[in-house]
Amino acid sequence: MATKAVPAQPARRLEGYIYNTWYLAGWRSDLDTKLSSVRILDESIVVFRTEGGQWVALEDLCPHKLAPLSLGDRIGDCLRCRYHGLKFAGDGRCVEIPGQSVVSAAVRVRTYPIVEKHGGIWIWMGASERSDESEVPDIIGEGDSGWRLHSASIDVNGSAQLLWDNLLDLSHIPFVHFNTLVAGDQAAAAAVLAGEVNKDSIVHDRGITVERWHSHQRRPAQVGDDRPLDEHIVTDFFAPGVLAIRFQTYDAGICDKYPSGEIPDEKRLLSSFACQVVTPVTETTCKIFYNVGSWDKSPPDPTLGVANDKAIVEDKQIIEAQQGAMRANPGRKPMMLSMDQNVVRFKAIMRRLTAQEADFAAVAD
Amino acid sequence: MATKAVPAQPARRLEGYIYNTWYLAGWRSDLDTKLSSVRILDESIVVFRTEGGQWVALEDLCPHKLAPLSLGDRIGDCLRCRYHGLKFAGDGRCVEIPGQSVVSAAVRVRTYPIVEKHGGIWIWMGASERSDESEVPDIIGEGDSGWRLHSASIDVNGSAQLLWDNLLDLSHIPFVHFNTLVAGDQAAAAAVLAGEVNKDSIVHDRGITVERWHSHQRRPAQVGDDRPLDEHIVTDFFAPGVLAIRFQTYDAGICDKYPSGEIPDEKRLLSSFACQVVTPVTETTCKIFYNVGSWDKSPPDPTLGVANDKAIVEDKQIIEAQQGAMRANPGRKPMMLSMDQNVVRFKAIMRRLTAQEADFAAVAD
Amino acid sequence: MATKAVPAQPARRLEGYIYNTWYLAGWRSDLDTKLSSVRILDESIVVFRTEGGQWVALEDLCPHKLAPLSLGDRIGDCLRCRYHGLKFAGDGRCVEIPGQSVVSAAVRVRTYPIVEKHGGIWIWMGASERSDESEVPDIIGEGDSGWRLHSASIDVNGSAQLLWDNLLDLSHIPFVHFNTLVAGDQAAAAAVLAGEVNKDSIVHDRGITVERWHSHQRRPAQVGDDRPLDEHIVTDFFAPGVLAIRFQTYDAGICDKYPSGEIPDEKRLLSSFACQVVTPVTETTCKIFYNVGSWDKSPPDPTLGVANDKAIVEDKQIIEAQQGAMRANPGRKPMMLSMDQNVVRFKAIMRRLTAQEADFAAVAD
Repeated sequence: MATKAVPAQPARRLEGYIYNTWYLAGWRSDLDTKLSSVRILDESIVVFRTEGGQWVALEDLCPHKLAPLSLGDRIGDCLRCRYHGLKFAGDGRCVEIPGQSVVSAAVRVRTYPIVEKHGGIWIWMGASERSDESEVPDIIGEGDSGWRLHSASIDVNGSAQLLWDNLLDLSHIPFVHFNTLVAGDQAAAAAVLAGEVNKDSIVHDRGITVERWHSHQRRPAQVGDDRPLDEHIVTDFFAPGVLAIRFQTYDAGICDKYPSGEIPDEKRLLSSFACQVVTPVTETTCKIFYNVGSWDKSPPDPTLGVANDKAIVEDKQIIEAQQGAMRANPGRKPMMLSMDQNVVRFKAIMRRLTAQEADFAAVAD
Repeated sequence: MATKAVPAQPARRLEGYIYNTWYLAGWRSDLDTKLSSVRILDESIVVFRTEGGQWVALEDLCPHKLAPLSLGDRIGDCLRCRYHGLKFAGDGRCVEIPGQSVVSAAVRVRTYPIVEKHGGIWIWMGASERSDESEVPDIIGEGDSGWRLHSASIDVNGSAQLLWDNLLDLSHIPFVHFNTLVAGDQAAAAAVLAGEVNKDSIVHDRGITVERWHSHQRRPAQVGDDRPLDEHIVTDFFAPGVLAIRFQTYDAGICDKYPSGEIPDEKRLLSSFACQVVTPVTETTCKIFYNVGSWDKSPPDPTLGVANDKAIVEDKQIIEAQQGAMRANPGRKPMMLSMDQNVVRFKAIMRRLTAQEADFAAVAD
Repeated sequence: MATKAVPAQPARRLEGYIYNTWYLAGWRSDLDTKLSSVRILDESIVVFRTEGGQWVALEDLCPHKLAPLSLGDRIGDCLRCRYHGLKFAGDGRCVEIPGQSVVSAAVRVRTYPIVEKHGGIWIWMGASERSDESEVPDIIGEGDSGWRLHSASIDVNGSAQLLWDNLLDLSHIPFVHFNTLVAGDQAAAAAVLAGEVNKDSIVHDRGITVERWHSHQRRPAQVGDDRPLDEHIVTDFFAPGVLAIRFQTYDAGICDKYPSGEIPDEKRLLSSFACQVVTPVTETTCKIFYNVGSWDKSPPDPTLGVANDKAIVEDKQIIEAQQGAMRANPGRKPMMLSMDQNVVRFKAIMRRLTAQEADFAAVAD
């Protein structure tokens, strides 16, 4: 009987996204107990671990009758389709068809490179031969030595691109997160806004970095007294949609004492980290994976995780309302203002990266 | 950074509707405590009152990132967007952009003329310069001197146009409202039908009026005894979708005593009013705002409001079933019968009015 | 006023289905107490019995305003529309329009041939003049003499065509129904699979028949002891989507004693029947009507009905997942394997039958 070769490329590429990159499929704790079906860039992928413990990611679609493979069962290192029992190995090859002695090599499913790193399971959505583990986004996650983190995720009924804009312009914090991240404090709100407006951005090949000092912060719950502190914050946002924020806290005045910026480790009082990793699910939905936590030597800030959870929900609400309004007003385009400098810069980066991929895809076809 | 002028006209006009007219956004009691978002002719509008008490209607869409303004907060006489804090005055101008000292005049939202009258808040959906308060539909509403009314509204998952047909041909009453408006009474049903069939309609520029007498009615609960009464009923239906019914009740025989129709006020025993105002929400959904009540000097009929509420639900059910059947049978067209005389007449009126608007819009573009 | 002739043919034919055939609208117990609305091949049909007990099937759409007639009331042998009271006779003619003395013959609704047989109500979806009661699918149903059956139905959010493939290739049983039909028994699963793989199919004009023996079965609950039995199974699948399975059970060895196949009736220990009748509802949804039961002289197998109910739900789940995956991957086509011999044969039959109908329809237009 006739068979059909498995497609090396997805049938339909979502516009504005890059494929030759790692996307977070889930924190390890979300995925490791069973077969899971995840959706990334509108492609359904079944994720499982072989008996030997290796991660496997296959297109979640049996080539026979197009039933989802994620309904099936793991049998040793293979996956068996629930419908007619076709068995697939981790390399995508069909190794058994019930009632048929010969299995054509054409019966196979697409595989995706998959790797576990920083407490997350990452899937490469582009050409397998281009995948490179060293390109997994540089975040801190559960299991990274010396860190304790709280990881979670949330589904958003809005596009990943709307989230990018959100994360690239933190001047929304005093408005969207007034009751959470700035705790209803008008002075704090003004300070955040002033910091955002006066920020200096460094534009990299795949993203944007902002470095700043917040001086005269107080963290009595963590450092044990009310002395003023200087906080150094590095905010990175980079393709395909990762926000990573590193906080270092010192006694007030440290900044002036080390104008060159090379502050000795032992001067550091607290060290914490937060990230949001946005995975596009469909054209108009996404998932935010996020974590927040501190270096083992830093006493944890118990309020940080709670405020962060609430703030993520606030972002979700505004993004979903925005997506709804855009759907209802298909002709309307957003407007760029001064606060959107980094939004504009990142759009340019993404245009360049997607154009490079389109060139590659044209050659591959 | 580049900005974009606010559109004076909606991106997409719904076919078969007029725009240069007042639509009921809500009874005053529905709207006056907070920011409200209403949808009329597929346009989302945020409605609020300034500190000074003035009604303001703005397009419910921040021109910056297209977040709904109705998520924001009223600040004095202005509205502040929840997302990045842009502040808009009641005239649609942006008066503040956080972190930006100069605000371009191009940053603005569309405003809609809005007026409070007859207990309702009315919005003009067409060109502002054409709006005229004297054109607010002539109904009786809460707050109109001497009247006590019960006002309500209901969402209908069917087009306003299907409601127009419903309200223009009251011969549906004996069938749709047999258990409510005619209280299961076969003779009453036959009388309603006979009245509908033999009605004389007066066609106006924007609607149709039917005047009739129902003789030998009895209203013991209201007039205190069982004597026969003559009821004079004037039913108006006019663009953009308002049914207004005025009832006057006299002792039986009054009609013959005053053949010219000028009956002195003191002869009137009861006086009541009911209306249904249909506001198109989207192409296939609408909202019916309705009220029913009586003039202060008339003892109220306690059963009238209840039957009316139930009857509106009966109309909603039939209209939603009809809309569903039309959706499932896209090629099928309704048929016009004798009972549809006023339906046909009103369609002709609407064709003339929408053609006039199309001419105007063509000039304005 | 203008009227419009009733269409003799549906506005839109669903591709891949035949129309000149009987579809099961419901088991008699589903339909006989009131007006019912059923949907077959994306057409809504109102089904009722006249005062005289005759079944009537009309298009569920009043030609006046396109309200569903199934909202109305049966009046004697007629159906009255709930909206404006038009009354239709069983032949589709409108016999009364309130307020109108003359009723044009053009005011009518489409009728469908309808017949009750084998405990089901069957509707002919094609040209009335071609309908033939003798073509009602040959199943055994409630009321058929000598049989006791359990009948039920289930809605499936997947196309009838996906169900056909399912029913034509029973090698899915060991996988989809491992815990129900094969009761978790690996040996039984292997036997089913071996039987499927080695089956001999007889291809008819409108379907496919498979005959086989399962030897050395045991049915202590039914025959009273544990002796080995030979079971003869005839599986028919035929257009427009009916699976009928007839089981005859004998003492082991009977097959060898009667090589010609003419086994005397008195040798039969058990006789049972099961069917699944798939009615296409829309392009991507269907309804499975099914029954299972035994001939009066056979002691019933109490577990059979329960396992069958569960197995139908398992099929529903796999079909709905398959339909969802196909919707999400519009470009992907299924693949044919050895096990799909009958799937391929039946597709050829359906292609021939639908092509014949297209020729007919072209002539009729």
